[in-house]
Amino acid sequence: MAEHVPSRTLTVPIRRFGIRASVAEPDLLAVEEPLQIRVGEHNLAVTMRTPGNDAELAAGLLFTEGFVQSSSDIIDIKCRSNTVCITLAEGVHVDPDRAERNFSITSSCGVCGKASMDALKTAGATVIPPSALKVKESLIRSLPAKLRENQTIFERTGGLHACGLFCAEGRMIILREDVGRHNALDKLIGRALLDGHLPLGHYVLMVSGRTSFELVQKAVMAGIPILVAVGAPSSLAVKTALRFGMTLVGFLRDDRFNAYSGASRIYQTKR
Amino acid sequence: MAEHVPSRTLTVPIRRFGIRASVAEPDLLAVEEPLQIRVGEHNLAVTMRTPGNDAELAAGLLFTEGFVQSSSDIIDIKCRSNTVCITLAEGVHVDPDRAERNFSITSSCGVCGKASMDALKTAGATVIPPSALKVKESLIRSLPAKLRENQTIFERTGGLHACGLFCAEGRMIILREDVGRHNALDKLIGRALLDGHLPLGHYVLMVSGRTSFELVQKAVMAGIPILVAVGAPSSLAVKTALRFGMTLVGFLRDDRFNAYSGASRIYQTKR
Repeated sequence: MAEHVPSRTLTVPIRRFGIRASVAEPDLLAVEEPLQIRVGEHNLAVTMRTPGNDAELAAGLLFTEGFVQSSSDIIDIKCRSNTVCITLAEGVHVDPDRAERNFSITSSCGVCGKASMDALKTAGATVIPPSALKVKESLIRSLPAKLRENQTIFERTGGLHACGLFCAEGRMIILREDVGRHNALDKLIGRALLDGHLPLGHYVLMVSGRTSFELVQKAVMAGIPILVAVGAPSSLAVKTALRFGMTLVGFLRDDRFNAYSGASRIYQTKR
Repeated sequence: MAEHVPSRTLTVPIRRFGIRASVAEPDLLAVEEPLQIRVGEHNLAVTMRTPGNDAELAAGLLFTEGFVQSSSDIIDIKCRSNTVCITLAEGVHVDPDRAERNFSITSSCGVCGKASMDALKTAGATVIPPSALKVKESLIRSLPAKLRENQTIFERTGGLHACGLFCAEGRMIILREDVGRHNALDKLIGRALLDGHLPLGHYVLMVSGRTSFELVQKAVMAGIPILVAVGAPSSLAVKTALRFGMTLVGFLRDDRFNAYSGASRIYQTKR
């Protein structure tokens, strides 16, 4: 059960906006990459994860979903880059039909971040033109307060993710909330779809929390040029934003923020 | 496309621990329930979501996964409690094989929280005996600092969820981190499985962030009697903890916390 451990962090160049003029600096990201889990001959699941402890992840997933009961049900676990292969003991079987119902299958059927981004292109995503939209630095700074203001019903629970769509002048167009951040964004994009407003090439999207591949993927599909988050992005979120020409902002707090891609869409204003 | 909106918040009785003796109080939770998405005759996906805007959620999901391109691809959307049925335009098809690869299918194949909990019982989860473990209030308070202390490698990225397993004396046994909170917990439980240490009836689990059904489900499978979180739980997280006799603590911040279930496992100590 030896495990080769790929890197769990990645250093990338970013542009940091703060009190003074923005500066180019390196920043450290948590790595997010797909892991393909195979049981015998079957592809069981693909999950987006941070590399490391992949044998544990696969064993834990099989246990918590009720497919194995003890370590003796597992004969062997082999990890190779972004794939883990499990051999079960004689008499222990994973019913593929039940597995299909149980596991989170992402849109990536490949075993690296590149395959995930390729799948996104196949699904119809296109590169956002650099000229799509430009906004003032001050507009970005104003978004967290506007998002919070409009979360009055749910803020008492403390349990909801929010995403808001803003026009270039900073007016909020749609706000949606959900216990799942992917659901909040699907609701927002679904509203725009039903109203015939897609693609959203002239809008800024603000999300609470962190940005993963899944959120950037959905925003790219909707043609949103600028995605702003309160929290940190993952490595694959940044790579996907770069590949599809999206501006990705993170760590927007206390008047500071980082641009992980497409900083040229944000123009500085005297303060 | 009229939509009946079930409640998005739920009031539950909790026990609030603070500076003085703990008090019983009502608290407001964000509702989490499964939504079954049907396209024509096919069950396409089940997603855990906060009720409301279900038509948008289904439409948005179909669009962001590349199955529909515009609102004219959708003829009708009908919402009924926790099910949404979509009728596509002639010539627009969802390939069930591709859908299986694309969508997150949870272990719930039913349309209400009860079905989700029943599925968990079927998968082998049992009720945790009340006598399993008792801990001091002061132990609960000590956990966030211990979790943070041990996150030294990743805290610089700000992008990782963590979960830690602690013995009744407060010593940390296992810590795992990941961009996905479900992965962090699967890694932790997988380690315990591979070491032959399951069930974890004498341990306390601490997680960063919020608690959803998914996290409680995994902890119940591992037989963990006490789950402590920094953030808020969802309604279904609390219902599941109650049903399986698990102590669920949330909002553990600044020496205060709430017990959403099983408060009798926490005994108060003079301060």
